[in-house]
Amino acid sequence: MTAAAPLFERVAIIGVGLIGGSVGKALRAHGLAGRVVGVGSGDDTAQALALGLIDEGAADPVAAVAGADLVIVATPVTTVPAIFEAIAPALAEHALITDCASTKGTVVQAAQRWLGAALSRYVAGHPIAGSEHSGPGAARADLFAGKRWLFSPGPQTQADAPERLMALVARMGARPALLDAGLHDAMFAEYSHAPHALVFALCLAVADGPHADQLADLAGAGFKDTPRIGASSPALWTDILIDNADETVASLQRFAVALAQMSDVLAAGDRAALQSMITRASAWRADVEK
Amino acid sequence: MTAAAPLFERVAIIGVGLIGGSVGKALRAHGLAGRVVGVGSGDDTAQALALGLIDEGAADPVAAVAGADLVIVATPVTTVPAIFEAIAPALAEHALITDCASTKGTVVQAAQRWLGAALSRYVAGHPIAGSEHSGPGAARADLFAGKRWLFSPGPQTQADAPERLMALVARMGARPALLDAGLHDAMFAEYSHAPHALVFALCLAVADGPHADQLADLAGAGFKDTPRIGASSPALWTDILIDNADETVASLQRFAVALAQMSDVLAAGDRAALQSMITRASAWRADVEK
Repeated sequence: MTAAAPLFERVAIIGVGLIGGSVGKALRAHGLAGRVVGVGSGDDTAQALALGLIDEGAADPVAAVAGADLVIVATPVTTVPAIFEAIAPALAEHALITDCASTKGTVVQAAQRWLGAALSRYVAGHPIAGSEHSGPGAARADLFAGKRWLFSPGPQTQADAPERLMALVARMGARPALLDAGLHDAMFAEYSHAPHALVFALCLAVADGPHADQLADLAGAGFKDTPRIGASSPALWTDILIDNADETVASLQRFAVALAQMSDVLAAGDRAALQSMITRASAWRADVEK
Repeated sequence: MTAAAPLFERVAIIGVGLIGGSVGKALRAHGLAGRVVGVGSGDDTAQALALGLIDEGAADPVAAVAGADLVIVATPVTTVPAIFEAIAPALAEHALITDCASTKGTVVQAAQRWLGAALSRYVAGHPIAGSEHSGPGAARADLFAGKRWLFSPGPQTQADAPERLMALVARMGARPALLDAGLHDAMFAEYSHAPHALVFALCLAVADGPHADQLADLAGAGFKDTPRIGASSPALWTDILIDNADETVASLQRFAVALAQMSDVLAAGDRAALQSMITRASAWRADVEK
């Protein structure tokens, strides 16, 4: 605990898995909240409480938000609209509301539809942090350290709301930034959603291809390096891709064009053109790594 | 050094980088060769000698193979034909010859063209081992431990040649197996070459796309997990892809169909079909990991 005064008196976290649980743990570790109340599905609430991710478990989202001056929704994107609908009448008049969804289209629409007067205190959020693991047991106080945490205020958002949220996550070690919600979804389609779809397609093509049976024996390790993310959670990725379908399809169409170009160069046996393409891809890729 | 008698009196290694250097180090570590003579490009020979990967450096491939009862060519695939042409007249009458190239088409053709009578003692080889690093400094005696080492004898190969090579690499800890050269190239197109081409294409599409500039800042870590191999050596991969172009293009065409199917399902917003595809991709992928 630090000696500084908490930034919020009572923070409600809805969804106490990897992200929500880590938010709770970070809030508590840095003394940023007077009290952290959380609620999750199944055994998550009890587990989060036992692990010290939250101070108090709530019976449901409506109970959790009562009296909270900050509400953080950290559930899968598909569940957010129903949660907004449920909690809207129970929100305190001064409560800030944010979410942690990987796509912004659905959550922003849901906020506009359900939050009413609280819409001016809602800021869509996206911590660019994750782990191969999930659930409260994977939560870490330093999950957001050094990571971007994007906020997408809308036209109705009051000016101090993003400012206060950015100050909060900076105290958790994150690097907050503002990004238009539409641009956010286009960018993450390009950086993450379409590449995931591409890798899923690759896995299916190989699984359905003529040599699937011997891959594990002959090339397991080599193939593992390639489409590591092919083993990501199907439910999570179905949600993300469906939620950001338009932008992801647009990115995939450009990926398909690039793939066809590479295939054509290779079919033509054009070594110089191929080496030029690979050199450019590789140099750019190495640059990203820095 | 072990007390067992060496399996070969004098082993010549042409190319003493990661693979050739590791072969030398493993031969010496397990006492499998009476003497290991090696030659590489640039400073590699001196470095391999200094690192103890070989007993003796040779001035060139022709000098290296003189008196050797085993010749291992571990240079990039494009250089193998010229090496076969150069060394053929200098090979001892009883010498076994193998290579370590990632594709078999070119090397098998080159062997048929250049090796003459020695063709019966040539067995195409492919140790399925590698590292992100290259050069003699990256060589490890245990590089092949637990890894497949494939051999593709041809119709003219005498029966004991693959047997002796398989016994040798088993003593280095590798798991030898036989695989038809054509099938080898089709399989590795599917498992490795086409996936690499796909990732290079992905990198180019994103690099040339509308959001390339902000990727490193916003999604560096996430994107890094995706196309890790995009930063592989351009020269190496140009060679491999050109050398196995037909099979790689065939795999890429099937990948493109799978990509189009996924894109169509996504564009249609068909959640059930998408989840079914991702679930299958993910389950299959997790299976490969085992």
